[in-house]
Amino acid sequence: MINPFTDEYFMKKALQEAEMAFEKGEIPVGALIVIDNKVIARGHNLTELLHDVTAHAEMQSITAAANYLGGKYLMGCTLYVTLEPCQMCAGALYWSQISRIVYGATDENRGFVKMGTQLHPKTTVVKGVLANEASELMKRFFVERRK
Amino acid sequence: MINPFTDEYFMKKALQEAEMAFEKGEIPVGALIVIDNKVIARGHNLTELLHDVTAHAEMQSITAAANYLGGKYLMGCTLYVTLEPCQMCAGALYWSQISRIVYGATDENRGFVKMGTQLHPKTTVVKGVLANEASELMKRFFVERRK
Repeated sequence: MINPFTDEYFMKKALQEAEMAFEKGEIPVGALIVIDNKVIARGHNLTELLHDVTAHAEMQSITAAANYLGGKYLMGCTLYVTLEPCQMCAGALYWSQISRIVYGATDENRGFVKMGTQLHPKTTVVKGVLANEASELMKRFFVERRK
Repeated sequence: MINPFTDEYFMKKALQEAEMAFEKGEIPVGALIVIDNKVIARGHNLTELLHDVTAHAEMQSITAAANYLGGKYLMGCTLYVTLEPCQMCAGALYWSQISRIVYGATDENRGFVKMGTQLHPKTTVVKGVLANEASELMKRFFVERRK
């Protein structure tokens, strides 16, 4: 039997979150957190609406997932996020000890790889999942914003 | 006339926040944000109570200050925090474009300096203000927790 719960499957849901951010005029980034193939948290960027630089998709998802689990550590969880996390989000993921991070598009300017932010040694990273879809959405957002 | 609003004056208030964290069984870190000598946000570490790795004193203060100002940028503000910020908090401060960061004790293991986290180019940093008081509080916390 084919396993439907692939990284692409969950990244598609993260992209839906990113589209919700887009529709609100927010930089379109979406995230979700999954444990045992079950989505336990979703979020999308809300920095403009909330006037809050900390309201990145990942930060909201980390808080929501911990709330669901009743504990602050996210061992056994995977974060799916459409754009490479920044220093702040990677720093939060470090503290959470999350097991896996799967991201779509690379953020060559402010992504945690370029910035040298340290993840927890137990965290594994997969990049480039549906990267084209994520970066097309970002490009479309910035084109529309310039109009 | 002597200006009462020194860095020590505000750091004492941040230490009071740290003591409130201590009394709740939280790692004792306190923070506040000041603009034009006026305190606009206070916070103390609540990661245990909230089961949330993002609930550092600085993160809560950044959110509260932006809420007070009605905008996400903290230009003109100073953050006072009893312990050197971590990667996550420094990453949030980067996005906030805060003008000054004043911290007490150095975090040699997980502080942003050791971790190489990048601050905004417009942000200036002062360290070591009431550092002894802040580190004594931390030491007392860990001694009591071991009992």
